[in-house]
Formats: sequence, C-alpha cells, structure tokens
Amino acid sequence: MPPARALAYARARRRRFLAELKEFVRFPSVSAQPRHAGDVATCAQWLASHLRRIGLDDVGVISTRGHPLVLASWQRAAGRPTVLIYGHYDVQPADPLPEWSSPPFAPTVRGNDLFGRGACDDKGQMFVHVKALEAWLRGSGALPVNIKCLFEGEEEIGSPNLLPFIARNKDLLAADVAVMSDTPMLGPGRPAIHHATRGALYLEVELRGTGHDLHSGNFGGVVHNPLQALCEMIAALHDANGRIAIPGCYDRVRQWSAGERLRMAREGPADAQILRDAEAHRGWGERGYSLYERLTLRPALTVNGIVAGYQGPGAKGVIPARALAKLSFRLVPDQDPREIDRLFRQRIARLTPATVRSTVRTLSWAKPAFIDPTHPSLRAAAFAYRKGFGAAPVLLRSGGTIPVMNAFLEVLRVPTAMMGFALPDDRMHAPNEKFHLPNFFNGIATGIWFLAAIGAGRQFHPPPAPAAGDFAMVPA
Amino acid sequence: MPPARALAYARARRRRFLAELKEFVRFPSVSAQPRHAGDVATCAQWLASHLRRIGLDDVGVISTRGHPLVLASWQRAAGRPTVLIYGHYDVQPADPLPEWSSPPFAPTVRGNDLFGRGACDDKGQMFVHVKALEAWLRGSGALPVNIKCLFEGEEEIGSPNLLPFIARNKDLLAADVAVMSDTPMLGPGRPAIHHATRGALYLEVELRGTGHDLHSGNFGGVVHNPLQALCEMIAALHDANGRIAIPGCYDRVRQWSAGERLRMAREGPADAQILRDAEAHRGWGERGYSLYERLTLRPALTVNGIVAGYQGPGAKGVIPARALAKLSFRLVPDQDPREIDRLFRQRIARLTPATVRSTVRTLSWAKPAFIDPTHPSLRAAAFAYRKGFGAAPVLLRSGGTIPVMNAFLEVLRVPTAMMGFALPDDRMHAPNEKFHLPNFFNGIATGIWFLAAIGAGRQFHPPPAPAAGDFAMVPA
Repeated sequence: MPPARALAYARARRRRFLAELKEFVRFPSVSAQPRHAGDVATCAQWLASHLRRIGLDDVGVISTRGHPLVLASWQRAAGRPTVLIYGHYDVQPADPLPEWSSPPFAPTVRGNDLFGRGACDDKGQMFVHVKALEAWLRGSGALPVNIKCLFEGEEEIGSPNLLPFIARNKDLLAADVAVMSDTPMLGPGRPAIHHATRGALYLEVELRGTGHDLHSGNFGGVVHNPLQALCEMIAALHDANGRIAIPGCYDRVRQWSAGERLRMAREGPADAQILRDAEAHRGWGERGYSLYERLTLRPALTVNGIVAGYQGPGAKGVIPARALAKLSFRLVPDQDPREIDRLFRQRIARLTPATVRSTVRTLSWAKPAFIDPTHPSLRAAAFAYRKGFGAAPVLLRSGGTIPVMNAFLEVLRVPTAMMGFALPDDRMHAPNEKFHLPNFFNGIATGIWFLAAIGAGRQFHPPPAPAAGDFAMVPA
Repeated sequence: MPPARALAYARARRRRFLAELKEFVRFPSVSAQPRHAGDVATCAQWLASHLRRIGLDDVGVISTRGHPLVLASWQRAAGRPTVLIYGHYDVQPADPLPEWSSPPFAPTVRGNDLFGRGACDDKGQMFVHVKALEAWLRGSGALPVNIKCLFEGEEEIGSPNLLPFIARNKDLLAADVAVMSDTPMLGPGRPAIHHATRGALYLEVELRGTGHDLHSGNFGGVVHNPLQALCEMIAALHDANGRIAIPGCYDRVRQWSAGERLRMAREGPADAQILRDAEAHRGWGERGYSLYERLTLRPALTVNGIVAGYQGPGAKGVIPARALAKLSFRLVPDQDPREIDRLFRQRIARLTPATVRSTVRTLSWAKPAFIDPTHPSLRAAAFAYRKGFGAAPVLLRSGGTIPVMNAFLEVLRVPTAMMGFALPDDRMHAPNEKFHLPNFFNGIATGIWFLAAIGAGRQFHPPPAPAAGDFAMVPA
C-alpha cells in the first residue's frame, strides 16, 4: 500500500497531534515513586482510550504486580508481516525540581521544542508510532502490516513485570519484527539506528555505623562515620586509570575486531561531539579507548546518588548512623549481570571495614543486547529514515539499556529496529527534558514509511542484498 | 542569702515547671531552616514574656540580621557579683523525621524523660536557670547576685550575630562570672563540669562536572561523575591511621603533659563508656590516643552530609551535574580556625581533578576554649552540684563547640562555668532527643545553690584555696 494518504493525513494534523502529546506528557507517570502510582495508572487508561479512538482492536490495560501494561493490536492484513511496536509511558523522577525552567508536568513549547518530563523519553518517541498508526488507519483506512502494540509503565525501574509477561505470552506477542524509539539521533537531520545496548545492574549499598545519629562535636574522631566509610569504599571501586576496580569484572568483556573499531571510529560520534552533548569540558574513563568505545564496548560503574547525613540548608553537626549509595553498572557483551552482581558483593564485603556493617540490595538488572546490522528490519528502518528525514541513518551502538530488547531477542526471537528520534541534548533523565518538534513530525512520516516498507515485504522472504547507501557515513 | 525558701518554692512547683518547659519545646525554633524563621521569632517572644512574668527587669528582644537575642537583667544586689547566664532557644533540624517515636515538636513524657527536639539542647538546660531565677525572685523575693541573661537563637548555626553583639556591648554584658548548661554529665547522678571545648569550622565543598545531569547509560564511563570525584576527595582527607590528611593541620595542636593525660584517664570516660553512649560496637580514629583524648585533645574532621544525585526510592540512572558535601572540623588548642580553613582550601584545590571544578564555602567557625580549672567560679559550681545532686562533679573536657564561651573569655574576660545537665544518651542533634526530668529538677536546685554560692562571695575576693573534695574522682 502506498503511504501517500497516510502521509497527507499526518501532515494536515500536526497541531492536534502536538496537543495530544502535551496531554500525554501532563501525567506525572513516575514509576519509581510510590506516590505517583495513581498517576501511572491514569496515564495507562488515557493511553488505552487513545489507542481505541484511533482504531486499534483488542485494546487492553493489563494489571501487573506493579504498573499496568497497555496492549493493542490490528491483525487484519492477512499474509503480511507482523510488527510489534514497543514503548514506555512511564517517566523518570522529575527532581531536582528547582532546576526546571517550566514545571516538568506542565508541557511547554519554547521555540521548536516541547519541554516536559517524558516529552522525549519515551512518551514523545512512542507517540510517533501511535500517530503513524492513526495516519494509516484514518488516512488510508487500513494498515499495510499486522500490528501488536506493547506499551509498559515500568521501563524506568527496570521492567520487572514486563519480562515475565513476555515469557508467559510468547504466542500473543509473536511477530516478525519489533520497533521501538527510545534512543538519540546524532543531531538534527542526522538519524541513527542503534543496534546494540549495554546491560545494566542497579544496586544499593547501605552502611550502618552507630545505633543512632551522633553529635559530631560529642563524638567526632572516635567512631567511624559510615558516610566517610562509604566515600572510602566508593573511591576504591575505580583505579587511577578509570577502570572498575572489581576483580573479575572485565573477564568476559568481548574484544572487538580492529575492523569493527575502525567502522565505529568512522561512523560513530567523535570525542568532541560526546563532550559537547554532555556539556563537559573534558573526558574521563578507561585509558586506551575512544569515548564512543568507552560508552558502548566497555562497562561503566556510576554512583547515581548518596543519601546520608544532613542535606538541608546551612549546618548540622551530625555523624549519621547510616549512609546509602545508589550505584549502577552498564554492562557489555559478554558480561552476565548475575555474575557481576556476585563479584560486586564480594568486593563490597572485602572493602567494608570492621567499624561498619554493609548491606547490598539488587534493584534490577538486564543483559546487554546486540542486533546483526544486516537484518532486513534494519534496512527497512534505514529506508524509512531516508524518506522521513531525507537522510540515511548511521548505525550506532548505545551506551544505555533497554531490557525489553533483550527479551524480544532471547524469548520471542524477534530483532528490534531501534529508530531513535531523540536529540543528544534532549536531556533524557535530567531537568528541562525536551523533544524537538521537527523530529516528532518527521518521525511520524518515518514511522509511516517504515510500516510501508515492512508491509511491502521486500525486506523479508528472501532478505535482499545490502543496498549501497542504506546507511550513512559520518564525515570524520 | 540562704536558699531554703527558693528551694522550697521550686520543689512545690515541679508540675508547672514541666508544663512550661513543654510549652517552650513546642516551638520548632530551627535556626538553620529559613522556613522556621517565624517560629524562631515567636519562640523568642514567648521566652521574653516568660522572663518578664518571673520578675526580671529590662527584658528585651533584640533583632539581628538573623534570629533575635533575648536579654533580661536584675541588678538590685548592690555590691554583689554579677552572673551572666547564657543559653540558646534555637534547636537543630529535626530530620530524619521518620525516626522519631513521637513528633519532635509535640513534647511527650515517657517514663522519666521528656522527648522533643530541644528538650535537652538547649531549651531544657537553659530553662533550669530560668526556673532557678524564678525560685529566688518569687520564693525569697530577691536574688543573691546581680543577673544578666543572654539567650540567643543562632547557636546551632554558629552564632554569627551573637559574637559581633558581644563585641559591641562589652559594658552591657560586663559580669564577674558566666554560667551555661549545654553539655552532658557522665551519667545519672554523676555531674560534670566542662572546662574546655573544641573549636569548629563548618564548610561546604561543591563539585561541578557537566553542564546538566546526564543519563548514566548514555554517558556512563566517559565523564567524571562529580559525586564519584567527591567520594574520592573525601576518602583522601584521612589517612589509614585515622589522622586528618591535610598538610599542616596538626602543626599547632598542643601537646599535653603526661600528668594531664593521666588525670584525664582517671577522671574522664573510659573507651567502653564512650562506645556505649555512641551505641557503637567499636572505636575508630587517631592511633595512640584514648577515645576521650581523641574527642577532646585531638582535632576531628567529619563529613556531615552529602547532597548529590538521586535520593528517592528505587532507581534513577543519573550522573549528577553537581555534588555537595557538608564537612566540619572540631579544633583544639592552639589551632586557629582561619588557618585550618586556609589549609583545607589548599588541600581541596590540590585534590580537585581537572575533570571537575570545586568551590569551598565557609559557613561558620569558632575557636577552641579552655577555662583554668582552679577558677573560683568552677569551685562554686562544684559546690552547687554537691548540694543539688548529692555528688561532686568531675572536671571534663568536651568534644563539642560553644562559640560564645570563647567570646566571653576573649572579649568580656569572663570565665564560664559549664554546668551540664544532659545525659550522654539524651541524643542531642539526633532523633528522639530527650531530657531526663530528675536532671531538670535537681538542676534547678543546683542553679539555686550556684547563685547562693556566688552571692556569698566566698569564691571571690580573694579566691579560696582548692578544698579537698570539690571535684570527684571517677573510679577507674
């Protein structure tokens, strides 16, 4: 089916599509914070109603032990491939609140950007596909493929209930290809397909010292402050070369060929670009690797937060009784999160001085994932980008983690086309998160073309030979 | 003047005195937190009314750039010595709130203790003297000495406005002796006079890394996390022997004679006692010194809190853009807070890696203070304790800091009798702070006797020879 009418439908309705996205972003669907559980549920209901309204069948809100899943499908294209569209409607916590220029849940357009928590990660990007579906269904009257939508509310907390759901529902979710948009492009007009993600392992380390908080005058110098001990232990988790100082941590890290590293150097972001995106004046990390390699081929360990002692304004002379750190690994092929968890616990046990007691809690984990870049679904995605953005995408590895991608690969045997529409400066997870509106609208066109290309089936049965120009080269 | 009628007056009014103390504790007069500024002011007004009601003259609430001072006097005892009574009506922040068994500002009696923030530090202990004044004025019709009361609302934030006020008002505050109660006894029935305090220096160190918070997947491993850098820097501030690792920090630390250290070992708390008070299972700190010595003769550096990254429940994959630590020194003779401040800043500058920028802010400082234990005012205090508690006090050094004591010594040339009524387990600065009610009531009797002893003048003009039994020996 030609996409002309779907494209015209979408082009004529940009104002309404933006208004609907703002409605979607308004829900403070923060999955990590129990006080927002009701907001997450309300957001799921809103999303389900929306999917019904655009013409999908069998829309359901599936409750879990945590936040609900939203499912929908359209399976009236007999003989055509089935596309599984994944996204997540939950968002990161909005704090630190004072740093937002406009309230995180009062979506605001400034210039060409929509500001709000989740505007980009992932409400805006998943809404691209929802609007592409609407354009086909309302503009052309039908979809060129069969569709299954799987939208979750727990991505930001490690998808604890989605993964078991997938394992229990392989037939329900069976598909030929999956697509998701939760990754950045290289820049405006420079689309990117991510074919690899890092795994993750999120932990808490808690130290307990004395039975209660102490006055630092009356006890300073005679007991080991657990907050000081925590700093000492965290400092010992990296060596002077920026490597993670945990015995065995690098044992299974895959060595990539010189050819692959050369390709990455050619096509991937340069150090200067990554530093610009980070607003950092200089790099850091493991010697002997480019920043792009450190970010994608090498593991990382980040202390994400410390909760200990007095955190208000001014002074409080206290030795806290306990100190807690939140830490997370990013893992690469062929590290196993469960093995790293064990090595980390051994290291913490060894680092814990006799003056304090330590507890380690594992909050979540996910394996690294890798999609063969020659798979036809990635070629369909590349074709769609050329149509939607007028530019061929580059093939990138991501430093981030999308646990579901691994489940699609391992459980459903479905590769995922990760078609990013975010910009590197969209501040996913940070204050003043935004979504670049040209990417929203070009993304919808790209989504329309992607479904057309998959529906045309030219990428499947049999897979075509790689066409020159499918993927772009980034100028060095 | 014999104290019999004052003592009888106080004994008969214990129930009312306790009710009044609860009223006093009910004000959340947290000086460190701007949102409580109104509560501090209201508390000052309540205190002033109370001082008027018990019969003091010239009661005034003196506004400052911060929280007000409350002054009062009674100068009708011509020819008698003048006693300057100091206390503070501000309190520490109450957090962490969830750890309180009853709300911090809903004072509650359980058993023989009054629980509430400030019940002990310092509302309860200063109220001891207020009630002693009332007992003399209402029970005997007059005081045996002249009195000046100086009550401040900024002790817990380093007395920034009191010290300039003292410097500007030497005549107004001129006295023969000062008394304050803001220190612990050794245990129930074991009173203590503190004749030395440590100085203090409270600082904030802020590190800035990238321009904004980053997603730890998208940037983990390529930028230096300022929270990790902060941990590394804090870890480098102590050496493996528990000494502060700042060049020059120990240069001026006074070496005490073997005799003084022997006296301290005999009379001061044993290691086991200090650990019991701290609810610690083992000690820590500078090798070669007892815990009591580490606490009083040796400087200490405590990290009081860290504010950085995600501090809510669950997981957030963030590399924070900034990380802040609150740190405080306790200083001993003959360290100079301004010199230590300079050495600390040099050390931080040297420890700051090129990947982050650091800022140091000095929030407050105070010199260490030392009162000659043979001074007659301390002998009067010892006499009063024997009468009020039936036990001779021991002479102790305190690890804490009372900036005003230094100002009294250096500016007014007045030594201070530090008559503690707190117990080691009263949890000053911690959740579930309490005041032991027998100490409240015996303290009032002690305060009455102290004024009688000073008024009798036998300790002044000329000072008496030390009397055997003035001070107690603690069994080893």
